[in-house]
Amino acid sequence: MTIGRFISLEGGEGAGKSTQLRALARILRERGLDVVETREPGGSDGAEAIRTLLLTGGADRWSPRAEALLFAAARADHVEKTIRPALARGAWVLSDRFLDSSRAYQGQGELSDSDILALHRIGSADFLPDRTLLLTLPDTVAAERARARDGDHADRIGDRDSSFHQAVADAFARFASLESDRVRAVDASGSADAVTERLIHALADLLP
Amino acid sequence: MTIGRFISLEGGEGAGKSTQLRALARILRERGLDVVETREPGGSDGAEAIRTLLLTGGADRWSPRAEALLFAAARADHVEKTIRPALARGAWVLSDRFLDSSRAYQGQGELSDSDILALHRIGSADFLPDRTLLLTLPDTVAAERARARDGDHADRIGDRDSSFHQAVADAFARFASLESDRVRAVDASGSADAVTERLIHALADLLP
Ligand SMILES: Nc1ncnc2c1ncn2[C@@H]1O[C@H](COP(=O)(O)OP(=O)(O)OP(=O)(O)O)[C@@H](O)[C@H]1O
Ligand SMILES: Nc1ncnc2c1ncn2[C@@H]1O[C@H](COP(=O)(O)OP(=O)(O)OP(=O)(O)O)[C@@H](O)[C@H]1O
Ligand SMILES: [Mg+2]
Ligand SMILES: [Mg+2]
Repeated sequence: MTIGRFISLEGGEGAGKSTQLRALARILRERGLDVVETREPGGSDGAEAIRTLLLTGGADRWSPRAEALLFAAARADHVEKTIRPALARGAWVLSDRFLDSSRAYQGQGELSDSDILALHRIGSADFLPDRTLLLTLPDTVAAERARARDGDHADRIGDRDSSFHQAVADAFARFASLESDRVRAVDASGSADAVTERLIHALADLLP
Repeated sequence: MTIGRFISLEGGEGAGKSTQLRALARILRERGLDVVETREPGGSDGAEAIRTLLLTGGADRWSPRAEALLFAAARADHVEKTIRPALARGAWVLSDRFLDSSRAYQGQGELSDSDILALHRIGSADFLPDRTLLLTLPDTVAAERARARDGDHADRIGDRDSSFHQAVADAFARFASLESDRVRAVDASGSADAVTERLIHALADLLP
Protein backbone atom coordinates (compact mmCIF):
# COMPACT_ATOMS: atom_id res chain seq x y z
CA MET A 1 0.00 0.00 0.00
CA THR A 2 1.25 3.51 -0.82
CA ILE A 3 1.46 6.11 1.91
CA GLY A 4 -1.56 8.40 1.78
CA ARG A 5 -0.80 12.09 1.28
CA PHE A 6 -2.94 15.14 1.82
CA ILE A 7 -2.34 18.03 -0.58
CA SER A 8 -4.21 21.34 -0.52
CA LEU A 9 -4.35 23.87 -3.34
CA GLU A 10 -4.59 27.49 -2.31
CA GLY A 11 -4.60 30.92 -3.95
CA GLY A 12 -6.94 33.77 -4.85
CA GLU A 13 -10.03 33.54 -7.06
CA GLY A 14 -9.17 32.67 -10.65
CA ALA A 15 -5.62 31.52 -9.90
CA GLY A 16 -6.36 28.11 -11.42
CA LYS A 17 -6.86 25.87 -8.34
CA SER A 18 -9.79 23.87 -9.74
CA THR A 19 -8.15 23.52 -13.17
CA GLN A 20 -4.88 22.31 -11.65
CA LEU A 21 -6.56 19.98 -9.18
CA ARG A 22 -8.16 18.09 -12.07
CA ALA A 23 -4.83 17.95 -13.95
CA LEU A 24 -2.93 16.71 -10.90
CA ALA A 25 -5.55 14.07 -10.17
CA ARG A 26 -5.24 12.73 -13.73
CA ILE A 27 -1.46 12.55 -13.56
CA LEU A 28 -1.39 10.91 -10.14
CA ARG A 29 -3.95 8.33 -11.26
CA GLU A 30 -1.82 7.58 -14.33
CA ARG A 31 0.95 6.80 -11.87
CA GLY A 32 -1.32 4.23 -10.25
CA LEU A 33 -2.31 6.20 -7.16
CA ASP A 34 -5.76 6.15 -5.57
CA VAL A 35 -6.80 9.83 -5.73
CA VAL A 36 -9.65 11.61 -3.93
CA GLU A 37 -10.64 15.06 -5.26
CA THR A 38 -12.36 17.26 -2.73
CA ARG A 39 -13.00 20.90 -1.91
CA GLU A 40 -13.82 23.36 0.83
CA PRO A 41 -16.13 24.42 2.21
CA GLY A 42 -17.66 20.97 1.76
CA GLY A 43 -16.26 17.57 0.90
CA SER A 44 -18.43 15.49 3.27
CA ASP A 45 -22.20 15.28 3.86
CA GLY A 46 -22.15 17.44 6.97
CA ALA A 47 -19.71 19.95 5.51
CA GLU A 48 -21.77 20.30 2.33
CA ALA A 49 -24.84 21.06 4.49
CA ILE A 50 -22.81 23.76 6.26
CA ARG A 51 -21.59 25.03 2.86
CA THR A 52 -25.22 25.57 1.88
CA LEU A 53 -25.74 27.66 5.03
CA LEU A 54 -22.58 29.65 4.28
CA LEU A 55 -23.33 30.37 0.63
CA THR A 56 -27.07 31.08 0.75
CA GLY A 57 -28.79 34.14 2.19
CA GLY A 58 -27.66 37.77 2.02
CA ALA A 59 -24.08 38.96 2.34
CA ASP A 60 -24.71 39.93 5.98
CA ARG A 61 -26.42 36.67 6.95
CA TRP A 62 -23.41 35.67 9.05
CA SER A 63 -21.09 37.85 11.07
CA PRO A 64 -17.37 37.27 10.46
CA ARG A 65 -17.23 35.47 13.82
CA ALA A 66 -20.11 33.09 13.09
CA GLU A 67 -18.72 32.52 9.61
CA ALA A 68 -15.30 31.52 10.93
CA LEU A 69 -16.92 29.02 13.32
CA LEU A 70 -19.02 27.53 10.51
CA PHE A 71 -15.96 27.13 8.27
CA ALA A 72 -14.12 25.41 11.13
CA ALA A 73 -17.10 23.11 11.81
CA ALA A 74 -17.29 22.16 8.12
CA ARG A 75 -13.54 21.50 8.08
CA ALA A 76 -13.75 19.30 11.20
CA ASP A 77 -16.39 17.16 9.47
CA HIS A 78 -14.45 17.11 6.18
CA VAL A 79 -11.25 15.98 7.93
CA GLU A 80 -12.95 13.30 9.99
CA LYS A 81 -15.40 11.86 7.47
CA THR A 82 -13.53 12.21 4.16
CA ILE A 83 -9.83 13.05 4.45
CA ARG A 84 -8.63 10.85 7.31
CA PRO A 85 -10.41 7.69 6.10
CA ALA A 86 -9.00 8.17 2.57
CA LEU A 87 -5.46 8.66 3.92
CA ALA A 88 -5.88 5.60 6.11
CA ARG A 89 -6.43 3.43 3.04
CA GLY A 90 -3.39 4.94 1.29
CA ALA A 91 -5.10 7.43 -1.03
CA TRP A 92 -3.82 10.80 -2.12
CA VAL A 93 -6.32 13.49 -1.18
CA LEU A 94 -6.34 16.73 -3.20
CA SER A 95 -8.39 19.54 -1.71
CA ASP A 96 -9.43 22.73 -3.49
CA ARG A 97 -8.78 25.13 -0.58
CA PHE A 98 -8.26 24.20 3.09
CA LEU A 99 -7.19 25.90 6.34
CA ASP A 100 -4.98 28.55 4.73
CA SER A 101 -8.00 30.02 2.92
CA SER A 102 -9.71 30.55 6.29
CA ARG A 103 -6.52 32.14 7.62
CA ALA A 104 -6.21 34.42 4.58
CA TYR A 105 -9.90 35.37 4.25
CA GLN A 106 -11.34 35.17 7.80
CA GLY A 107 -8.20 35.86 9.81
CA GLN A 108 -7.69 39.44 8.80
CA GLY A 109 -10.55 41.50 10.16
CA GLU A 110 -12.03 41.14 13.61
CA LEU A 111 -10.33 37.77 14.05
CA SER A 112 -6.59 37.13 14.11
CA ASP A 113 -4.56 34.35 12.54
CA SER A 114 -4.15 32.83 15.98
CA ASP A 115 -7.94 32.79 16.45
CA ILE A 116 -8.34 30.83 13.20
CA LEU A 117 -5.56 28.46 14.26
CA ALA A 118 -7.27 27.98 17.66
CA LEU A 119 -10.50 27.00 15.88
CA HIS A 120 -8.52 24.50 13.82
CA ARG A 121 -6.91 23.03 16.92
CA ILE A 122 -10.26 22.63 18.64
CA GLY A 123 -12.08 21.42 15.51
CA SER A 124 -9.46 19.27 13.82
CA ALA A 125 -6.65 18.70 16.34
CA ASP A 126 -4.24 20.78 14.20
CA PHE A 127 -4.48 18.41 11.25
CA LEU A 128 -2.39 19.86 8.37
CA PRO A 129 -1.69 18.99 4.72
CA ASP A 130 1.54 17.20 3.87
CA ARG A 131 1.98 19.88 1.23
CA THR A 132 0.13 23.05 0.34
CA LEU A 133 0.49 24.31 -3.22
CA LEU A 134 -0.02 28.06 -3.33
CA LEU A 135 -0.84 29.31 -6.84
CA THR A 136 0.43 32.86 -7.24
CA LEU A 137 -0.75 35.12 -10.02
CA PRO A 138 -0.80 38.90 -10.46
CA ASP A 139 -4.25 40.28 -9.56
CA THR A 140 -4.88 41.59 -13.04
CA VAL A 141 -4.25 38.21 -14.71
CA ALA A 142 -6.46 36.39 -12.19
CA ALA A 143 -9.27 38.90 -12.72
CA GLU A 144 -8.99 38.43 -16.49
CA ARG A 145 -9.20 34.62 -16.15
CA ALA A 146 -12.20 34.80 -13.84
CA ARG A 147 -13.92 37.27 -16.17
CA ALA A 148 -13.32 35.00 -19.14
CA ARG A 149 -14.86 32.15 -17.17
CA ASP A 150 -17.80 33.84 -15.44
CA GLY A 151 -18.68 36.68 -17.83
CA ASP A 152 -19.34 40.23 -16.74
CA HIS A 153 -22.38 39.50 -14.58
CA ALA A 154 -20.49 37.23 -12.23
CA ASP A 155 -17.30 39.14 -11.71
CA ARG A 156 -16.58 38.09 -8.15
CA ILE A 157 -13.09 39.58 -8.35
CA GLY A 158 -14.43 43.03 -9.23
CA ASP A 159 -16.89 42.78 -6.33
CA ARG A 160 -14.20 43.44 -3.78
CA ASP A 161 -11.60 46.12 -3.90
CA SER A 162 -8.03 45.42 -4.86
CA SER A 163 -6.69 46.19 -1.38
CA PHE A 164 -8.69 43.21 -0.08
CA HIS A 165 -7.17 40.91 -2.69
CA GLN A 166 -3.74 42.28 -1.96
CA ALA A 167 -4.20 41.54 1.76
CA VAL A 168 -5.25 37.97 0.95
CA ALA A 169 -2.25 37.50 -1.35
CA ASP A 170 0.07 38.95 1.32
CA ALA A 171 -1.34 36.56 3.93
CA PHE A 172 -0.80 33.54 1.67
CA ALA A 173 2.77 34.72 0.95
CA ARG A 174 3.40 35.00 4.69
CA PHE A 175 2.32 31.40 5.29
CA ALA A 176 4.64 30.24 2.49
CA SER A 177 7.59 32.05 4.00
CA LEU A 178 6.91 31.02 7.61
CA GLU A 179 6.01 27.39 6.86
CA SER A 180 8.28 26.82 3.91
CA ASP A 181 8.34 23.05 4.24
CA ARG A 182 4.56 22.68 4.03
CA VAL A 183 3.56 25.63 1.84
CA ARG A 184 5.18 26.03 -1.59
CA ALA A 185 4.41 29.09 -3.69
CA VAL A 186 4.16 28.17 -7.38
CA ASP A 187 3.97 30.62 -10.25
CA ALA A 188 0.53 30.14 -11.83
CA SER A 189 1.11 32.21 -14.95
CA GLY A 190 1.60 30.74 -18.42
CA SER A 191 -0.18 27.74 -19.88
CA ALA A 192 -2.08 25.27 -17.71
CA ASP A 193 0.38 22.53 -18.71
CA ALA A 194 3.35 24.63 -17.66
CA VAL A 195 1.74 25.27 -14.27
CA THR A 196 0.97 21.58 -13.77
CA GLU A 197 4.61 20.74 -14.44
CA ARG A 198 5.71 23.21 -11.75
CA LEU A 199 3.22 21.70 -9.29
CA ILE A 200 4.45 18.14 -9.91
CA HIS A 201 7.97 19.45 -9.30
CA ALA A 202 6.80 20.92 -5.95
CA LEU A 203 5.47 17.46 -5.00
CA ALA A 204 8.49 15.47 -6.20
CA ASP A 205 9.84 14.59 -2.75
CA LEU A 206 6.47 13.09 -1.71
CA LEU A 207 5.82 10.99 -4.82
CA PRO A 208 6.40 7.25 -4.61
CA MET B 1 -35.75 53.36 29.71
CA THR B 2 -34.95 50.39 31.96
CA ILE B 3 -31.53 48.76 31.82
CA GLY B 4 -31.65 45.63 29.68
CA ARG B 5 -30.63 42.43 31.45
CA PHE B 6 -29.65 39.07 30.09
CA ILE B 7 -30.66 36.06 32.19
CA SER B 8 -29.95 32.45 31.29
CA LEU B 9 -31.67 29.40 32.79
CA GLU B 10 -29.56 26.28 33.09
CA GLY B 11 -29.84 22.78 34.48
CA GLY B 12 -30.29 19.19 33.37
CA GLU B 13 -33.18 17.78 31.32
CA GLY B 14 -36.48 17.97 33.18
CA ALA B 15 -35.28 20.42 35.83
CA GLY B 16 -38.01 22.89 34.88
CA LYS B 17 -36.16 25.49 32.79
CA SER B 18 -38.87 25.96 30.17
CA THR B 19 -41.65 26.00 32.77
CA GLN B 20 -39.83 28.58 34.88
CA LEU B 21 -38.85 30.72 31.91
CA ARG B 22 -42.53 31.18 31.04
CA ALA B 23 -43.40 31.98 34.67
CA LEU B 24 -40.56 34.51 35.01
CA ALA B 25 -41.51 36.19 31.74
CA ARG B 26 -45.10 36.64 32.95
CA ILE B 27 -44.02 38.14 36.25
CA LEU B 28 -41.47 40.49 34.70
CA ARG B 29 -44.06 41.67 32.17
CA GLU B 30 -46.52 42.34 34.99
CA ARG B 31 -43.83 44.59 36.43
CA GLY B 32 -43.86 46.54 33.18
CA LEU B 33 -40.67 45.18 31.66
CA ASP B 34 -40.14 44.42 27.97
CA VAL B 35 -39.29 40.69 27.99
CA VAL B 36 -37.81 38.56 25.22
CA GLU B 37 -38.10 34.77 25.63
CA THR B 38 -35.50 32.80 23.72
CA ARG B 39 -33.69 29.47 23.74
CA GLU B 40 -30.58 27.64 22.63
CA PRO B 41 -29.56 26.23 20.30
CA GLY B 42 -31.57 28.73 18.23
CA GLY B 43 -33.13 32.09 18.98
CA SER B 44 -32.28 33.81 15.67
CA ASP B 45 -32.80 32.85 12.01
CA GLY B 46 -29.24 31.67 11.47
CA ALA B 47 -29.07 29.88 14.81
CA GLU B 48 -32.34 28.07 14.16
CA ALA B 49 -30.94 26.86 10.82
CA ILE B 50 -27.88 25.54 12.68
CA ARG B 51 -30.20 23.98 15.29
CA THR B 52 -31.85 22.00 12.49
CA LEU B 53 -28.42 20.70 11.42
CA LEU B 54 -27.61 19.80 15.03
CA LEU B 55 -30.84 18.00 15.82
CA THR B 56 -31.45 16.09 12.57
CA GLY B 57 -29.57 13.07 11.27
CA GLY B 58 -28.19 10.16 13.25
CA ALA B 59 -26.55 10.37 16.64
CA ASP B 60 -23.10 10.17 15.03
CA ARG B 61 -23.79 12.77 12.34
CA TRP B 62 -21.44 15.21 14.06
CA SER B 63 -18.26 14.54 15.99
CA PRO B 64 -18.03 16.20 19.42
CA ARG B 65 -15.59 18.70 17.92
CA ALA B 66 -17.81 19.69 14.99
CA GLU B 67 -20.79 19.82 17.34
CA ALA B 68 -19.04 22.23 19.71
CA LEU B 69 -18.18 24.53 16.78
CA LEU B 70 -21.76 24.47 15.52
CA PHE B 71 -23.12 25.33 18.98
CA ALA B 72 -20.65 28.23 19.20
CA ALA B 73 -21.62 29.45 15.71
CA ALA B 74 -25.32 29.33 16.61
CA ARG B 75 -24.59 31.20 19.85
CA ALA B 76 -22.61 33.90 18.00
CA ASP B 77 -25.59 34.51 15.72
CA HIS B 78 -28.06 34.42 18.62
CA VAL B 79 -26.04 36.96 20.60
CA GLU B 80 -25.54 39.32 17.68
CA LYS B 81 -28.96 39.18 16.03
CA THR B 82 -31.32 38.67 18.98
CA ILE B 83 -29.81 39.25 22.41
CA ARG B 84 -27.66 42.36 21.96
CA PRO B 85 -30.33 44.31 20.00
CA ALA B 86 -32.95 43.50 22.66
CA LEU B 87 -30.66 44.59 25.48
CA ALA B 88 -29.84 47.78 23.58
CA ARG B 89 -33.52 48.80 23.64
CA GLY B 90 -33.78 48.05 27.37
CA ALA B 91 -35.45 44.63 27.25
CA TRP B 92 -34.93 41.73 29.64
CA VAL B 93 -33.82 38.67 27.70
CA LEU B 94 -34.53 35.23 29.19
CA SER B 95 -32.75 32.35 27.50
CA ASP B 96 -33.54 28.66 27.98
CA ARG B 97 -29.90 27.42 28.11
CA PHE B 98 -26.79 29.35 27.03
CA LEU B 99 -22.99 28.98 27.27
CA ASP B 100 -22.96 26.94 30.48
CA SER B 101 -24.86 24.12 28.76
CA SER B 102 -22.08 23.89 26.16
CA ARG B 103 -19.51 23.86 28.94
CA ALA B 104 -21.39 21.16 30.87
CA TYR B 105 -22.32 18.94 27.89
CA GLN B 106 -19.56 19.51 25.29
CA GLY B 107 -16.69 20.47 27.58
CA GLN B 108 -16.26 17.13 29.28
CA GLY B 109 -15.06 14.62 26.71
CA GLU B 110 -12.45 15.31 24.07
CA LEU B 111 -12.78 19.05 24.62
CA SER B 112 -11.97 20.91 27.81
CA ASP B 113 -13.81 23.75 29.51
CA SER B 114 -11.11 26.13 28.29
CA ASP B 115 -11.70 24.96 24.69
CA ILE B 116 -15.40 25.79 25.01
CA LEU B 117 -14.54 29.16 26.55
CA ALA B 118 -12.09 29.84 23.70
CA LEU B 119 -14.87 29.20 21.18
CA HIS B 120 -17.07 31.63 23.07
CA ARG B 121 -14.35 34.29 23.07
CA ILE B 122 -13.83 33.92 19.32
CA GLY B 123 -17.56 33.62 18.51
CA SER B 124 -19.13 36.05 20.94
CA ALA B 125 -16.32 38.16 22.44
CA ASP B 126 -16.90 36.56 25.88
CA PHE B 127 -20.45 37.88 26.14
CA LEU B 128 -21.99 36.59 29.41
CA PRO B 129 -25.39 36.72 31.13
CA ASP B 130 -25.92 39.25 33.91
CA ARG B 131 -27.25 36.30 35.88
CA THR B 132 -27.46 32.58 35.31
CA LEU B 133 -30.15 30.69 37.22
CA LEU B 134 -29.09 27.09 37.72
CA LEU B 135 -32.03 24.81 38.53
CA THR B 136 -30.83 21.93 40.67
CA LEU B 137 -32.85 18.79 41.16
CA PRO B 138 -32.00 15.22 42.19
CA ASP B 139 -31.59 13.03 39.09
CA THR B 140 -34.46 10.76 40.06
CA VAL B 141 -36.96 13.62 40.41
CA ALA B 142 -35.90 15.15 37.07
CA ALA B 143 -36.25 11.79 35.33
CA GLU B 144 -39.73 11.38 36.81
CA ARG B 145 -40.81 14.84 35.60
CA ALA B 146 -39.46 14.24 32.10
CA ARG B 147 -41.16 10.83 31.98
CA ALA B 148 -44.47 12.36 33.01
CA ARG B 149 -44.06 14.91 30.23
CA ASP B 150 -42.69 12.80 27.38
CA GLY B 151 -44.09 9.37 28.09
CA ASP B 152 -42.06 6.20 27.97
CA HIS B 153 -41.20 6.34 24.28
CA ALA B 154 -39.35 9.63 24.59
CA ASP B 155 -37.36 9.09 27.72
CA ARG B 156 -34.32 11.17 26.87
CA ILE B 157 -33.10 10.99 30.46
CA GLY B 158 -33.08 7.20 30.45
CA ASP B 159 -31.17 7.27 27.14
CA ARG B 160 -27.93 8.23 28.81
CA ASP B 161 -26.44 6.64 31.86
CA SER B 162 -26.59 8.25 35.24
CA SER B 163 -22.83 8.85 35.40
CA PHE B 164 -23.21 11.19 32.43
CA HIS B 165 -25.96 13.15 34.16
CA GLN B 166 -23.91 13.26 37.33
CA ALA B 167 -20.94 14.69 35.42
CA VAL B 168 -23.18 17.37 33.88
CA ALA B 169 -24.63 18.25 37.31
CA ASP B 170 -21.12 18.40 38.79
CA ALA B 171 -19.94 20.73 36.02
CA PHE B 172 -22.89 23.09 36.57
CA ALA B 173 -22.20 23.07 40.32
CA ARG B 174 -18.56 23.95 39.64
CA PHE B 175 -19.54 26.98 37.57
CA ALA B 176 -21.85 28.15 40.37
CA SER B 177 -19.10 27.89 42.94
CA LEU B 178 -16.38 29.48 40.78
CA GLU B 179 -18.55 32.27 39.35
CA SER B 180 -20.80 32.83 42.31
CA ASP B 181 -21.79 36.36 41.33
CA ARG B 182 -23.10 35.36 37.92
CA VAL B 183 -24.32 31.80 38.52
CA ARG B 184 -26.85 31.13 41.28
CA ALA B 185 -27.89 27.59 42.09
CA VAL B 186 -31.59 27.42 42.94
CA ASP B 187 -33.39 24.41 44.40
CA ALA B 188 -35.88 23.29 41.74
CA SER B 189 -37.84 20.85 43.88
CA GLY B 190 -41.33 21.49 45.19
CA SER B 191 -44.16 23.25 43.39
CA ALA B 192 -43.54 25.37 40.30
CA ASP B 193 -44.74 28.45 42.19
CA ALA B 194 -42.29 27.83 45.02
CA VAL B 195 -39.44 27.53 42.51
CA THR B 196 -40.47 30.73 40.74
CA GLU B 197 -40.41 32.57 44.06
CA ARG B 198 -36.84 31.37 44.68
CA LEU B 199 -35.79 32.49 41.21
CA ILE B 200 -37.25 35.98 41.67
CA HIS B 201 -35.32 36.17 44.91
CA ALA B 202 -32.12 35.26 43.04
CA LEU B 203 -32.78 38.17 40.66
CA ALA B 204 -33.77 40.69 43.33
CA ASP B 205 -30.61 42.82 43.09
CA LEU B 206 -31.08 43.27 39.32
CA LEU B 207 -34.77 44.19 39.32
CA PRO B 208 -35.74 47.84 38.88
N1 LIG C 1 -2.92 28.60 -17.02
C1 LIG C 1 -4.06 29.17 -17.43
N2 LIG C 1 -4.09 30.04 -18.45
C2 LIG C 1 -5.23 30.61 -18.84
N3 LIG C 1 -6.43 30.38 -18.28
C3 LIG C 1 -6.48 29.52 -17.26
C4 LIG C 1 -5.30 28.88 -16.77
N4 LIG C 1 -5.66 28.09 -15.73
C5 LIG C 1 -6.98 28.23 -15.59
N5 LIG C 1 -7.47 29.10 -16.50
C6 LIG C 1 -8.86 29.52 -16.64
O1 LIG C 1 -9.03 30.58 -15.69
C7 LIG C 1 -10.31 30.47 -15.07
C8 LIG C 1 -10.09 30.31 -13.56
O2 LIG C 1 -9.47 29.05 -13.31
P1 LIG C 1 -10.00 28.14 -12.12
O3 LIG C 1 -11.49 28.07 -12.13
O4 LIG C 1 -9.24 26.86 -12.18
O5 LIG C 1 -9.49 29.03 -10.92
P2 LIG C 1 -9.77 28.86 -9.36
O6 LIG C 1 -8.51 29.21 -8.68
O7 LIG C 1 -10.37 27.52 -9.11
O8 LIG C 1 -10.84 30.00 -9.14
P3 LIG C 1 -11.98 30.10 -7.98
O9 LIG C 1 -11.26 30.47 -6.73
O10 LIG C 1 -12.83 31.24 -8.48
O11 LIG C 1 -12.68 28.78 -7.93
C9 LIG C 1 -10.98 29.28 -15.71
O12 LIG C 1 -11.82 29.73 -16.75
C10 LIG C 1 -9.86 28.46 -16.26
O13 LIG C 1 -10.24 27.69 -17.39
N1 LIG D 1 -42.00 22.22 40.11
C1 LIG D 1 -42.47 21.21 39.36
N2 LIG D 1 -43.07 20.15 39.92
C2 LIG D 1 -43.52 19.14 39.17
N3 LIG D 1 -43.42 19.08 37.83
C3 LIG D 1 -42.82 20.11 37.22
C4 LIG D 1 -42.30 21.21 37.94
N4 LIG D 1 -41.74 22.08 37.05
C5 LIG D 1 -41.90 21.53 35.85
N5 LIG D 1 -42.55 20.36 35.93
C6 LIG D 1 -42.89 19.44 34.85
O1 LIG D 1 -41.72 18.67 34.60
C7 LIG D 1 -41.52 18.48 33.22
C8 LIG D 1 -40.16 19.08 32.82
O2 LIG D 1 -40.20 20.50 32.98
P1 LIG D 1 -39.59 21.44 31.85
O3 LIG D 1 -40.02 20.99 30.50
O4 LIG D 1 -39.88 22.85 32.24
O5 LIG D 1 -38.05 21.10 32.09
P2 LIG D 1 -36.80 21.54 31.23
O6 LIG D 1 -35.73 21.84 32.22
O7 LIG D 1 -37.18 22.61 30.28
O8 LIG D 1 -36.47 20.20 30.47
P3 LIG D 1 -35.70 20.00 29.07
O9 LIG D 1 -34.24 20.23 29.34
O10 LIG D 1 -35.99 18.56 28.75
O11 LIG D 1 -36.29 20.97 28.08
C9 LIG D 1 -42.69 19.16 32.54
O12 LIG D 1 -43.70 18.21 32.27
C10 LIG D 1 -43.17 20.16 33.57
O13 LIG D 1 -44.55 20.45 33.43
MG1 LIG E 1 -12.24 26.92 -8.26
MG1 LIG F 1 -37.13 22.70 28.16
